[in-house]
Amino acid sequence: MDQSQTTAAEPLVHTKLEDGVLTLTLNRPQQYNALSWAMLEALREALSSAQDPAVRVVVLAGAGKAFCAGHDLKEMRANCTLDFQRRLFALCSEVMLSLIRLPVPVIARVHGIATAAGCQLVGMCDLAVASSQARFAVSGINVGLFCSTPSVALSRNMGRKEAFEMLVTGEFIDAEEARRRGLVNRVVAPEALDEEVERLAAAIKAKSPVAVRMGKELFYRQLEMGIEAAYQLAGEVMACNMMAEDAAEGIDAFIEKRPPQWRGC
Amino acid sequence: MDQSQTTAAEPLVHTKLEDGVLTLTLNRPQQYNALSWAMLEALREALSSAQDPAVRVVVLAGAGKAFCAGHDLKEMRANCTLDFQRRLFALCSEVMLSLIRLPVPVIARVHGIATAAGCQLVGMCDLAVASSQARFAVSGINVGLFCSTPSVALSRNMGRKEAFEMLVTGEFIDAEEARRRGLVNRVVAPEALDEEVERLAAAIKAKSPVAVRMGKELFYRQLEMGIEAAYQLAGEVMACNMMAEDAAEGIDAFIEKRPPQWRGC
Amino acid sequence: MDQSQTTAAEPLVHTKLEDGVLTLTLNRPQQYNALSWAMLEALREALSSAQDPAVRVVVLAGAGKAFCAGHDLKEMRANCTLDFQRRLFALCSEVMLSLIRLPVPVIARVHGIATAAGCQLVGMCDLAVASSQARFAVSGINVGLFCSTPSVALSRNMGRKEAFEMLVTGEFIDAEEARRRGLVNRVVAPEALDEEVERLAAAIKAKSPVAVRMGKELFYRQLEMGIEAAYQLAGEVMACNMMAEDAAEGIDAFIEKRPPQWRGC
Repeated sequence: MDQSQTTAAEPLVHTKLEDGVLTLTLNRPQQYNALSWAMLEALREALSSAQDPAVRVVVLAGAGKAFCAGHDLKEMRANCTLDFQRRLFALCSEVMLSLIRLPVPVIARVHGIATAAGCQLVGMCDLAVASSQARFAVSGINVGLFCSTPSVALSRNMGRKEAFEMLVTGEFIDAEEARRRGLVNRVVAPEALDEEVERLAAAIKAKSPVAVRMGKELFYRQLEMGIEAAYQLAGEVMACNMMAEDAAEGIDAFIEKRPPQWRGC
Repeated sequence: MDQSQTTAAEPLVHTKLEDGVLTLTLNRPQQYNALSWAMLEALREALSSAQDPAVRVVVLAGAGKAFCAGHDLKEMRANCTLDFQRRLFALCSEVMLSLIRLPVPVIARVHGIATAAGCQLVGMCDLAVASSQARFAVSGINVGLFCSTPSVALSRNMGRKEAFEMLVTGEFIDAEEARRRGLVNRVVAPEALDEEVERLAAAIKAKSPVAVRMGKELFYRQLEMGIEAAYQLAGEVMACNMMAEDAAEGIDAFIEKRPPQWRGC
Repeated sequence: MDQSQTTAAEPLVHTKLEDGVLTLTLNRPQQYNALSWAMLEALREALSSAQDPAVRVVVLAGAGKAFCAGHDLKEMRANCTLDFQRRLFALCSEVMLSLIRLPVPVIARVHGIATAAGCQLVGMCDLAVASSQARFAVSGINVGLFCSTPSVALSRNMGRKEAFEMLVTGEFIDAEEARRRGLVNRVVAPEALDEEVERLAAAIKAKSPVAVRMGKELFYRQLEMGIEAAYQLAGEVMACNMMAEDAAEGIDAFIEKRPPQWRGC
């Protein structure tokens, strides 16, 4: 059985769409789901399918023992030209940014370790639910490679001293500490992880897709603005949101004390 | 008794100036102090009176069971033109921004629920003291209306994942969690709420009004700058502050181990 | 014994370089290490010596009971011209900014009080380890002088309401609260302080100097950028870091399961 057949039988990213939830599972368990070039391309492809209106929530998970151990160091060493590295990090950053550009929320489902670019993936997801046994590090510094791109995500999820300590020591923090700092939203026992992810996904699926889409886009745009410009944009988005059918339906349902019926797109 | 007489007898925002503390109480208890157009105008008017040099601190409170339940959804549905919505959110944003532009600190006194634009009010106050029974949510998403303008305040008070979770689920957090995240400064038992607000107000009133005014303005301006530009501006403000009579008096009093006598404006 | 001899015998900043760790100790214990003009110049001078490639980590400490009590108020009052104040704060800001511009990490070793510009020093260090008996305040407001320049550092280390409360009340927080907010990384018993600082310094010394230098510079630059620009710059830095000998050595050592041998500059 040659390589391409293996790839066909065992996709690098396993995809499942069920009841509005698109679950993407990184699927290189023997390599702790390392983000090789091919894996990044597969993830980019898989994420693009979340544009489908049938998708209401994306869940990002990892197969095997780890969530994701970051880049594929062997591949990086085997292709040690500046050009390859630049293209690799451009591809990686494109995938990372696509997470916040998707029209639906993305939940990281974190078990085991999330290190380097694996920790960055958690940082870039809109939400994260972790097993109490999950652990987080930006450990590139241990191999002489400061986690510069992960630092972009990490420093936007926790305090600067907290982030810098992790970056410069490479040390792990546990799930509870990750929650305390803001890197993950919820921590549950390993056996309750899927249930908690489903609960969070269900809460989002119960909302108007139009409102969630408008809101997510606005949220990340306003974060980078001064407060006055942010209010100007947010006010415009709210006015447009109010003109959508779902807002009329939602408010009428609220006033009439009945459940809303979203139009759905 | 017609509507206008009621309004005259029961103002939408109750105002009390006592010993340097201007307490503004949202006064539509039956509607959980919903921010109707008239309420926003009344609040804008009331806040403008905090320019009076006799005012040293503003306390923002709510009458009845709730602090504030956000916008008046019935009124919004009854005026469902894009033009009305734009003007409404422009007015609302103006009121919200005026809180940080006032020359004196504003303390939110939060009991009961603070939802949607009510939670935003808490976020925009300089300081917040909450009853342990207070609860916070940005629940517009439940009626198909993502809390876009509240997200501007919320995401500047807590981590982005923490804020996004509240925005997209509409779920409540309690007062202790709000404190942990940075949305409120102090949490006390309901019966101790007024005393704690007074204690915080008294601590501020004991300070030089000139120094507080210069400092508050600088604080919000520097937050939006790069760190070098922030230092340049802050250094200039400190140099000017040092030239004010109150700094001379304050330092002399400190050296002479006596209480300072502020000039008062 | 004249003043200059005293200065020679007892430098304002005591300097010790041992095994890659440059320890700078503010040395005006009777004045709680107040940052006089001369002290700021001495600190600037001492920090410039951290450019030496033999230095891998800087530790900033204080002699006597306090870490640092901020500016020298007597000197400021004795030179109360706008010109002097401007030059003083320009010098101070230059020293503060030099901490994040150094090519090596700076650890604040905090015992006793860190107030006003002393608290700002902690905020500007990359990392901070505190004794459980350390206490932090930005207390200028008590003498009519809002801590505007310290607010630049403080508001970049903790939430805005948390920072504003400290600035406007002048009240102290203890070491544990400082850690919870992100102003310090680690809190230990007073007798374990030096050991913990050494442990943190040792963790950093074990890393590649090239990677740490590239990473620290990138970290502070990307913090001030929008997320897309930040990724673009960080990707470029990672690609360059990968071309450094230390990354090749580090990854090869990792794959071969042996300790890396850094080239060292």
